[in-house]
Amino acid sequence: MRVLGIDPGLTRCGVGVVEGSIGRPLSLVDVGVVRTSTELHVAHRLRELEVGLEEWLDRTRPDAVAVERVFSRSAVSTVMGTAQASGVAMLVAARRGLPVALHTPSEVKAAVTGNGRADKAQVGAMVARLLRLDAVPKPADAADSLALAICHVWRGGASDRIAAALEKQVAARTRGVRP
Amino acid sequence: MRVLGIDPGLTRCGVGVVEGSIGRPLSLVDVGVVRTSTELHVAHRLRELEVGLEEWLDRTRPDAVAVERVFSRSAVSTVMGTAQASGVAMLVAARRGLPVALHTPSEVKAAVTGNGRADKAQVGAMVARLLRLDAVPKPADAADSLALAICHVWRGGASDRIAAALEKQVAARTRGVRP
Repeated sequence: MRVLGIDPGLTRCGVGVVEGSIGRPLSLVDVGVVRTSTELHVAHRLRELEVGLEEWLDRTRPDAVAVERVFSRSAVSTVMGTAQASGVAMLVAARRGLPVALHTPSEVKAAVTGNGRADKAQVGAMVARLLRLDAVPKPADAADSLALAICHVWRGGASDRIAAALEKQVAARTRGVRP
Repeated sequence: MRVLGIDPGLTRCGVGVVEGSIGRPLSLVDVGVVRTSTELHVAHRLRELEVGLEEWLDRTRPDAVAVERVFSRSAVSTVMGTAQASGVAMLVAARRGLPVALHTPSEVKAAVTGNGRADKAQVGAMVARLLRLDAVPKPADAADSLALAICHVWRGGASDRIAAALEKQVAARTRGVRP
């Protein structure tokens, strides 16, 4: 199974694609970030993000998409932009009929390092080891997107089947309506 | 000028279209809500919302779109869904090259009633009076979307010109890339 992990953000949106299945070695397909221009209105930044994510989906053809769950508890001023970016990420995947799963940061950390409160360095180091990379992918958003994808490979089976069933249900309603 | 006001939400997204210009009477084009199914995964709800908003844009052909600005200060559990819905609303408009403006709830209340802390009933009553309607549109999300559109007609000129200039700038980057 090939999973695209998305660490949502307006300035840097981490995107990482991993191939693997439970009990088998994982491999890196590609990793990077989609950036949008800080000088643009948020509406245009969301549009740039959509175009960037569509390119990643076209090129890497994942079977499922995993997006980091955003919480409102965060007092960070960027949380609204992050939430909007996560909305665009989910929308783009749903439009293609791909299963979409949300994983919390602590679920991802626990899956990859065994510790739900691991720090960024520990997560990065485990991602590099699991994918047999020479170095931790930079920036941190890129490494986080790979951790999300790995978490989904290991946790994703059941939630994907539920999502696929729901997708069939909604497909009838939105079929043929393409923007 | 014809403005589509959007009061973002996942369960009920208010949509109201107003025609008018500064110093002239306003008129109602159409008003309603786009609803999405609470039993679906948020990714599919965002897709339903996109389809619904596309239908409104196709049918009513606004010159500009005004979206209510969402704040993270709100402790309400629905704030993430509201932020994601607002992201989809802005995206859909930006993709069409329409100017998108954000107005805060207090800007909208002040524009329509003269009081930035007016309650829902006062806003609804003024919307009905300004548009010469027999009754306040229901639900409140629908009335709020009309208030947003009216606010934008009265405040929108300058911000639309800025948005249009930025849109030209970004169009070169995203041209021809359609999902």
